[in-house]
Order: sequence, then C-alpha cells, then structure tokens
Amino acid sequence: MNLLLLTPDDLTEAHRAVVRGRRLEHMRKIVRAKVGDRVKVGLLRGPERATTGTLANLCGQTGEAEITALDRERLELRFTLAHPPPKPLPVQLIVALPRPPTFHKVLQQATAMGVKRFVFVHAARVEGSYWTSRALKGDGPKNHMMLGLEQARDTVLPTIEYHRKLHVFFETRYRELVAGTDVLLGHPAGTGHMPTGIANMRTLVIGPEGGWIDREVERFIAEGAQLWSLGPRILRVETAVVAMLAKLA
Amino acid sequence: MNLLLLTPDDLTEAHRAVVRGRRLEHMRKIVRAKVGDRVKVGLLRGPERATTGTLANLCGQTGEAEITALDRERLELRFTLAHPPPKPLPVQLIVALPRPPTFHKVLQQATAMGVKRFVFVHAARVEGSYWTSRALKGDGPKNHMMLGLEQARDTVLPTIEYHRKLHVFFETRYRELVAGTDVLLGHPAGTGHMPTGIANMRTLVIGPEGGWIDREVERFIAEGAQLWSLGPRILRVETAVVAMLAKLA
Repeated sequence: MNLLLLTPDDLTEAHRAVVRGRRLEHMRKIVRAKVGDRVKVGLLRGPERATTGTLANLCGQTGEAEITALDRERLELRFTLAHPPPKPLPVQLIVALPRPPTFHKVLQQATAMGVKRFVFVHAARVEGSYWTSRALKGDGPKNHMMLGLEQARDTVLPTIEYHRKLHVFFETRYRELVAGTDVLLGHPAGTGHMPTGIANMRTLVIGPEGGWIDREVERFIAEGAQLWSLGPRILRVETAVVAMLAKLA
Repeated sequence: MNLLLLTPDDLTEAHRAVVRGRRLEHMRKIVRAKVGDRVKVGLLRGPERATTGTLANLCGQTGEAEITALDRERLELRFTLAHPPPKPLPVQLIVALPRPPTFHKVLQQATAMGVKRFVFVHAARVEGSYWTSRALKGDGPKNHMMLGLEQARDTVLPTIEYHRKLHVFFETRYRELVAGTDVLLGHPAGTGHMPTGIANMRTLVIGPEGGWIDREVERFIAEGAQLWSLGPRILRVETAVVAMLAKLA
C-alpha cells in the first residue's frame, strides 16, 4: 500500500476522514503508523463520480494526511489533496474470463499498470463455472482493483463489463467499444512487431489459457483486429497481460 | 502445462519413460489424457548436465510422445526428441530476496519468459526471516522453475545463486557476474528510456518492495549500473519483473 485510498464514505467533514477495516489493520500492523505520522492519501473516484460541489472536485486527487487518532477501532486523518493521479494507460482490455484466482490477479496488476476499462467475455475454452464464481460477485472485483490503485498511487477506479455470450458481445457492444482504437489480439500466429496504428488508444485482446478457437480469431480479424505475438513462449494469462501492457506502455 | 517435462530419472530405456506424482496427476485430471494420445514432451537439461553419450545429446531436446500406458500409478510414454528448446532470454536477474510467495512467482514467471540465471541478494529492506523460509529449501525453487518451463515449452533449468551479505556479493561475485553485460537497475529516478548499451546480454536488478536504500543504489551506480524506470507507477516485485523483462525482450 503506497497510498491510503479514501472513499467519499470515509469523509466526516471537509479534510477529515475516518478509516476502519482492512486499511486500518494494514496501517496498524504493516505500516505500524502512529499518531502524528504523515501518509500519502488519495480520494477514490469511482464510476458514480460525485456531482455535488467540493467533493466532485476533490475526487481523484492525491495528497498528504496527518494521523490525528489511531486505535483498534479507527484511524482518523486530517488531509489535504492537491495533485492529480498518475496518467491512465491508454489501453483497454478485452479478456476471455479466466479462472477466479487469475481474474483477481489480472484486475489487480492491470489496474496498478493504469488500465481503466476491463471487458470480460466468454469464449469456447472458458469454463462455464467461471461465470458463477463468487470471485465475480460483491465487492471482490472492486477490492482487487483498489489494491492495484493503492499499489500505484492511483485513485481512479476502472470500470468492468461482463459479456457472457460472445456473439451477442460482437453484435451489440464490440464496435462501439473499440471505435477509434487499434485492436491487438495476442496470438502465437501474430508477428513480434508492434502494429503501428495511428490511434492513441489501444484495445488489447487476451484469450483463455487454452487459446481462442479459430472461429473466434477469425471473427476478431473480420472486425479489424491485428494479431500480435510476444514470441514462441506461451505465457499464463496473468503474465501475458502484464507483459503485453508493458510493451504497449 | 504445455509440455510434459521429463527428467533423466524418468527414462526407463532409450525413448521410453515412466512418469508419476504431480505430472501424472496433471495428465490424468486436467489434461484427461488417454492411452494412444500424443503429447508434447521435453527432456530437462539441468545444471548437472549428463555427460555420457546419447543422454547428453538428448537433454534439452523437445519432441512428441505417445502414451502407451496410463493408470493411477504411472504414465508410460514412448517418445522422440528432435527439436531444440526456445531461445533463452538474454537477461539475467539480480533480485533483492522477496517474501516467499513472491519469490516463487518470480521464479515461475521469469523462467517462463526465458531467464536462465537468478541471483538473489540481501538488501537493507529485505526481512531477515525471508532467508530462513522453507520456500528456499528442498525442491521448492526447482519445482517452480519447472512449472515455468512446462508453461513455455522450455527444457533448460535456470541456475540460482543466493548471496546473504550484499557487501560480500559486491566484493566477491558482482563484477564477474555482470562482465560484458549492460546492467539496468529498476528505480523511480531512472529515465523511461531504454538504455542502449552495445552488449547482447543484460543484467536486470530488481529491488525489494520498499526499494533500495540510497547507499545501495550508489554502490550499483559506482559499479556501472544504469537507472531505468517504467514510469511513475510503483509496481509489485512480481509485476515489475514481468514488465521489465517484456520491455527488454
């Protein structure tokens, strides 16, 4: 945790906040924070960005806080926010839904690298049971993205979409999603050369562990995707995501 | 597992092998292999490379096998080996010893990406307890590297060195290790530009989660290392390793 990420719910008054739960435990036991310590903080900007006055302007900002009280129940802070978050990575990810632990790793690591949009889709080699996993439910996905934000001192929560039928995704969402971007599909048959599109924004498409089937690849190509390979080595999904994002950064 | 990695101990006669344990379980339960199936195989080449005749020539080769028997006790194969493994990545890693789960992830992921030499060193911000972890003992490190090899269809086991005193490492091993390589130290103060050395081989130096202390960075610089940054985002060690290796590949 390189940044203590505050949410609008933590704020008690202007420039003051109270933190409990995981973040409190982390500050007490890992950081071993004490009253009077100064820590880096940021105010989360979620998709439901606040629209009212001061808070709307503060959401997403980063700054410093002084710890004014700390016990087993609560961490109190007085903070100032003055800086913007780091720039987002101009890459959106379309990923065949991986198995649950990999799903969490992808969210956390790609968020730390600056991805702001995740689009999870079905594929022939995605197991149906992945779609009913607890990993997709409740606050799990958000919590893993927040860990990534805290790691990278970022404050802007990515968005997630799920498309459980690939053909419906292509018919109803794909074109709008990728409009104005270069679409790169990680595939062993691709060249090792970076496709040099002119768009600033890129869409990176990552297949399941077993790979896309031919029909799926053909559909992506028909829609304008370019094949791109990292080389002859087959990497696990979470490794491939990080490696490809690093190449695109 | 994209390649069934055989070890010299698995060989029962020329071109025949018997596999048990984890690999047998994986082939039965995940791959759901049957008698008659053909699978990709490779013969591990370890640091203790066999020096006698046929085996010495086969170690490191990859090829195909036919499953000739399979039950709960054993998987029998008849194989042919005809192809070299993928090229190694011309990068060696010097890493401040991370906490045990990260240590395993770094071994597995960097091995999959083609790293052939790992050098783990102490640093001011490495916890002493990491050095006595069970993760470093027995077959744990080798097993994680083998998972990386199987993932990437590689056969050549990397070597690992441990240096528990950083000043002794600098005095007795560092110069010999990095001779003829460009040494890149991941550091926020580095430029985002790839240092353009003339050497083919590179040494990538990765610090602990809390970073190197100034004195350690100064020592690396005094010995010729160049600072190199991936940008303002602070990444976890396992993410940074994959991202930097991808940039160097």
